[in-house]
Amino acid sequence: MQENIVVQTIKRADPEVIAGLARCGVATVHEAQGRRGLLADYMRPIQQDVSVAGSAVTISGAAGDNWMMHVAIEQCQAGDIMVFAPTSPSNFGFFGDLLATSAQARGVAGLIIEGGVRDTRILREMNFPVWSKHIFAQGTIKETLGSVNVPLVCADELIHPGDIIVADDDGVVVVRREEAEEVLAEALAREAREEEKRVRMANGELGLDIYNMRPRLKEKGLKYV
Amino acid sequence: MQENIVVQTIKRADPEVIAGLARCGVATVHEAQGRRGLLADYMRPIQQDVSVAGSAVTISGAAGDNWMMHVAIEQCQAGDIMVFAPTSPSNFGFFGDLLATSAQARGVAGLIIEGGVRDTRILREMNFPVWSKHIFAQGTIKETLGSVNVPLVCADELIHPGDIIVADDDGVVVVRREEAEEVLAEALAREAREEEKRVRMANGELGLDIYNMRPRLKEKGLKYV
Amino acid sequence: MQENIVVQTIKRADPEVIAGLARCGVATVHEAQGRRGLLADYMRPIQQDVSVAGSAVTISGAAGDNWMMHVAIEQCQAGDIMVFAPTSPSNFGFFGDLLATSAQARGVAGLIIEGGVRDTRILREMNFPVWSKHIFAQGTIKETLGSVNVPLVCADELIHPGDIIVADDDGVVVVRREEAEEVLAEALAREAREEEKRVRMANGELGLDIYNMRPRLKEKGLKYV
Amino acid sequence: MQENIVVQTIKRADPEVIAGLARCGVATVHEAQGRRGLLADYMRPIQQDVSVAGSAVTISGAAGDNWMMHVAIEQCQAGDIMVFAPTSPSNFGFFGDLLATSAQARGVAGLIIEGGVRDTRILREMNFPVWSKHIFAQGTIKETLGSVNVPLVCADELIHPGDIIVADDDGVVVVRREEAEEVLAEALAREAREEEKRVRMANGELGLDIYNMRPRLKEKGLKYV
Amino acid sequence: MQENIVVQTIKRADPEVIAGLARCGVATVHEAQGRRGLLADYMRPIQQDVSVAGSAVTISGAAGDNWMMHVAIEQCQAGDIMVFAPTSPSNFGFFGDLLATSAQARGVAGLIIEGGVRDTRILREMNFPVWSKHIFAQGTIKETLGSVNVPLVCADELIHPGDIIVADDDGVVVVRREEAEEVLAEALAREAREEEKRVRMANGELGLDIYNMRPRLKEKGLKYV
Amino acid sequence: MQENIVVQTIKRADPEVIAGLARCGVATVHEAQGRRGLLADYMRPIQQDVSVAGSAVTISGAAGDNWMMHVAIEQCQAGDIMVFAPTSPSNFGFFGDLLATSAQARGVAGLIIEGGVRDTRILREMNFPVWSKHIFAQGTIKETLGSVNVPLVCADELIHPGDIIVADDDGVVVVRREEAEEVLAEALAREAREEEKRVRMANGELGLDIYNMRPRLKEKGLKYV
Repeated sequence: MQENIVVQTIKRADPEVIAGLARCGVATVHEAQGRRGLLADYMRPIQQDVSVAGSAVTISGAAGDNWMMHVAIEQCQAGDIMVFAPTSPSNFGFFGDLLATSAQARGVAGLIIEGGVRDTRILREMNFPVWSKHIFAQGTIKETLGSVNVPLVCADELIHPGDIIVADDDGVVVVRREEAEEVLAEALAREAREEEKRVRMANGELGLDIYNMRPRLKEKGLKYV
Repeated sequence: MQENIVVQTIKRADPEVIAGLARCGVATVHEAQGRRGLLADYMRPIQQDVSVAGSAVTISGAAGDNWMMHVAIEQCQAGDIMVFAPTSPSNFGFFGDLLATSAQARGVAGLIIEGGVRDTRILREMNFPVWSKHIFAQGTIKETLGSVNVPLVCADELIHPGDIIVADDDGVVVVRREEAEEVLAEALAREAREEEKRVRMANGELGLDIYNMRPRLKEKGLKYV
Repeated sequence: MQENIVVQTIKRADPEVIAGLARCGVATVHEAQGRRGLLADYMRPIQQDVSVAGSAVTISGAAGDNWMMHVAIEQCQAGDIMVFAPTSPSNFGFFGDLLATSAQARGVAGLIIEGGVRDTRILREMNFPVWSKHIFAQGTIKETLGSVNVPLVCADELIHPGDIIVADDDGVVVVRREEAEEVLAEALAREAREEEKRVRMANGELGLDIYNMRPRLKEKGLKYV
Repeated sequence: MQENIVVQTIKRADPEVIAGLARCGVATVHEAQGRRGLLADYMRPIQQDVSVAGSAVTISGAAGDNWMMHVAIEQCQAGDIMVFAPTSPSNFGFFGDLLATSAQARGVAGLIIEGGVRDTRILREMNFPVWSKHIFAQGTIKETLGSVNVPLVCADELIHPGDIIVADDDGVVVVRREEAEEVLAEALAREAREEEKRVRMANGELGLDIYNMRPRLKEKGLKYV
Repeated sequence: MQENIVVQTIKRADPEVIAGLARCGVATVHEAQGRRGLLADYMRPIQQDVSVAGSAVTISGAAGDNWMMHVAIEQCQAGDIMVFAPTSPSNFGFFGDLLATSAQARGVAGLIIEGGVRDTRILREMNFPVWSKHIFAQGTIKETLGSVNVPLVCADELIHPGDIIVADDDGVVVVRREEAEEVLAEALAREAREEEKRVRMANGELGLDIYNMRPRLKEKGLKYV
Repeated sequence: MQENIVVQTIKRADPEVIAGLARCGVATVHEAQGRRGLLADYMRPIQQDVSVAGSAVTISGAAGDNWMMHVAIEQCQAGDIMVFAPTSPSNFGFFGDLLATSAQARGVAGLIIEGGVRDTRILREMNFPVWSKHIFAQGTIKETLGSVNVPLVCADELIHPGDIIVADDDGVVVVRREEAEEVLAEALAREAREEEKRVRMANGELGLDIYNMRPRLKEKGLKYV
């Protein structure tokens, strides 16, 4: 009733747009696209102070089975981000240093995994960034087929192959490929607006005044005592 | 039935006492005041190896609404610590780099938030320390009034404005303002006692002997086999 | 009906074997012994990029009571790892800088604790590695007897005194003392096999080909579209 | 960048097919469609021993805001099941006895909500079945638009309007509308096969023999001692 | 530095007011007092379809120690509700059938406990209602003093002795004693307003029309397609 | 390195002793054996007001694989309780109505499973009691060998085949087979002692007086104000 497929051709966004989104970071991109697209907050980085963006190569596999990881790496291009979601919850270590070596050799920019990862120290030494739900050394098997480059749900969000993944210390956000340029433009505009406010705030001006909040606070009935 | 108020004048403890508590750290202060005042263990720092203390400026706001943060910053003085608790649970990112810039401009020493925080990498770069329940980029609104400098419950503990907050890698503890001096004195005494024991232990003496535990262990029936 | 005992003599594995296991790390050792022995994934290090191995000195104590820690330190030899499990769940801070000083003076290599730990910053500064379920400053008492060097369950795994504990950023694994040599041999063999694959993968060869996965994928029905 | 819409016309499956799926129950339907479609296990019924199925009317709303519930009820027909997912996590009580009265007046068969529900005792008395992530009396607001009858992610699964929801004491499963007939046929066939086995098992025959497992167990190396 | 005290005289609200609040239930009372006072959603009843209200006799005790329960029962009058919060988290079974027998003999109406309870089947048979965070048979000790009838934090809410506790299947809410009458009046008014709406909804009228939501939905931009 | 075995002969305790322990219930048995042996509090019954005891037939299987269940049933005798623990965490539905039918045909008295169960409504209708960590319909496979009647860790406790399992609404406790008679004797004695106290308490006498607590409370410094 269901077929396991590998979609070999996906559309990717413009690399410059992707790079721009990486520079903006998760919180800004999330705001810029109307506060949509955030993956669940249990997706945490295994490293600190790293920000990446890339085109999603999506991987759906069985709980405790990482076979499709190998299949997926062949479909990756430089700059892609692998996005793995098991079909049922699993904290197993689906990904470790060997797979990372292989992925990095193809230029994969990182991994988003709603499951476990292992060899985390080596992954950090390799500068291969990972956002995962679990860290666990438990080994996986290679028995059950899954699919590559199909739409899937990862950490509460629907992700299509070729969507742009942005990930940093605040978590992970997905941007629809077709909206990427527009989101970037809005994100940059937002950054510009924020920069001006940051300068004023750094000089001691208050948000109360910058955003002209006092009248509305008064109107709603806030009392200073 | 309830009013939303901003209390503009709060009493603060002596800055030297506060500085002393910061140097003692959470575990020692907690012991010194009779093992009271620890916030729940889900309050974790976003940075490592930072210890601060300051006077609590308390902020009560609605879930997913950070309006009162702006109101609160105006009430802060150099060395204060903002303490935010939503009126119902929320993992939203109530605080980010802009608010941190504003807070830091007024000399705010840190943030304790039973909710989410974002822009964590920038906050670390700014050396603005935060202890939070969540890290999440989800944006908040500015719709609902709350109160500033009222007593509130944050992470299982009742906190009054002007109470001293001590926070480090072990978590967060609150000290009543009126007890601060006494607690500091006891904490320093405790440190002195501990230092002497530390030297003996470093030289290989056992706690069993330093604390004279052997007779009581024997009396209670511990058997060496 | 139950006795509280301290077993003073336990067998330990060959130090060279233990050192070898530390070098192999948790994920490899776990694989080498047939994917057994992993402690639950909530056991997390308080430090980063540290890998240790040692002989387990096991400690069973009451919730919120760290008395047996003192008793256990006397039973430790250089290179041992203390393994503490409370008889019922407790997030209290059973272990801090004083106990660490004492343990380190005897050459203890680290602590595994299904409970809380405190003074984490100082422990890191001392290079005393800890894997714990909780970080919490809450103080403990010294009222109830427990046992030292008895078999116990820690984080889902049965651990005997003298078993080898291997711990790193991926978590904690236990190796039966009698199997340690065999496990090390298999771990080293596995490392050698992996090293060869790592080189091929780093050169861009795919796991699909290195492991000859394509025929089986086809046979199971995977479709490339 | 995003529009809030209410899709007023959706396709629904044949009521007889839906009724058939309700009779089969979650576990059987899940098996019959290749072990897909199960919502996360935190979706629990507020009542016991109730099994329902219906066409999904999907509702996407903001955290802590139940405005779209009112909008959605107008779109419901007899036998429909409301499926609500907030755009960010929220334990608020989005649904209570008033909304249930309104929904029941239109013949709504139940509610699936990745959030909180309240007035649970009255809902049980009304025989209005609910599967929720939370039970919490916290009131919601009506401020932010959402959408009705758009595809959404609820408890890890993608749900389209008109998909069939089956829910019972084991949880919740979604069946694609286009596959409903086929899934029902397979579920009924499975039930028939199981019934025959149930009789044999009730008579004391073992699964080991019914499924002829002994040779494969032996081949894999299981030892009886 | 801290004293352990038993306050023997507390003020209680009018029994008729308390009975009225019990009839209104948690969700209505919570709304009536401006959506304040809800205890955390992990406080769950061990029985179904029971609604109670009573004056809080507050009990602060150590983790794993139920000594103060015995002290507190002496302070209880008919209709009181015991409210226990440990000074640090504990899932131990602080309360069982013997204490319930004693409490019931004094007319205690129920127990709210941010900890564990045991003998739950017997408690149900006795019709002694309990809302707890945990169910766990683990036995407690009687070693450490606490206090009775002092203000305390239970499940995120500050509770004063004599405050009114309302508890039902939706959870637990606290009402300040001084506000009880006013809250009841508002709750009854709210019930009356809701009853009228319930009738209209039962007759098929929509909330969209009853609350005149359509213009505002249109103004905010909701599109029907 | 590890063998998968089925131990066909285990010792069981006297059926009368087992029946006696069932009547005493979990809390009393736990107390009677010195507060040992409680399984973790996440082991919850799928039914209410049921108390059972039986000899443990232990089953160790892989995550998401219930093959060994079939193997184990053949080893069961009337009155046994199946105890299943996966070698790594898994919420899959390892057990449903078919296996229950088979188990019940052999007289199995219940199931303890540190994993998921399904068909819970039917299991209740069959009066086949289950205590589980999860309820989840997710189907399992039959691919990997495990072992039957070996010592294993289930929900934090070490369980040997033939140990007595006692389970009721308060959770699950394990009694060592060799200690069963002694534990029962102590449990019955305890019940007798408690019965006398229950009568006194029901008549309004306080625990403060029955246990003569007042002098010790005074000595420790409790103040009545």
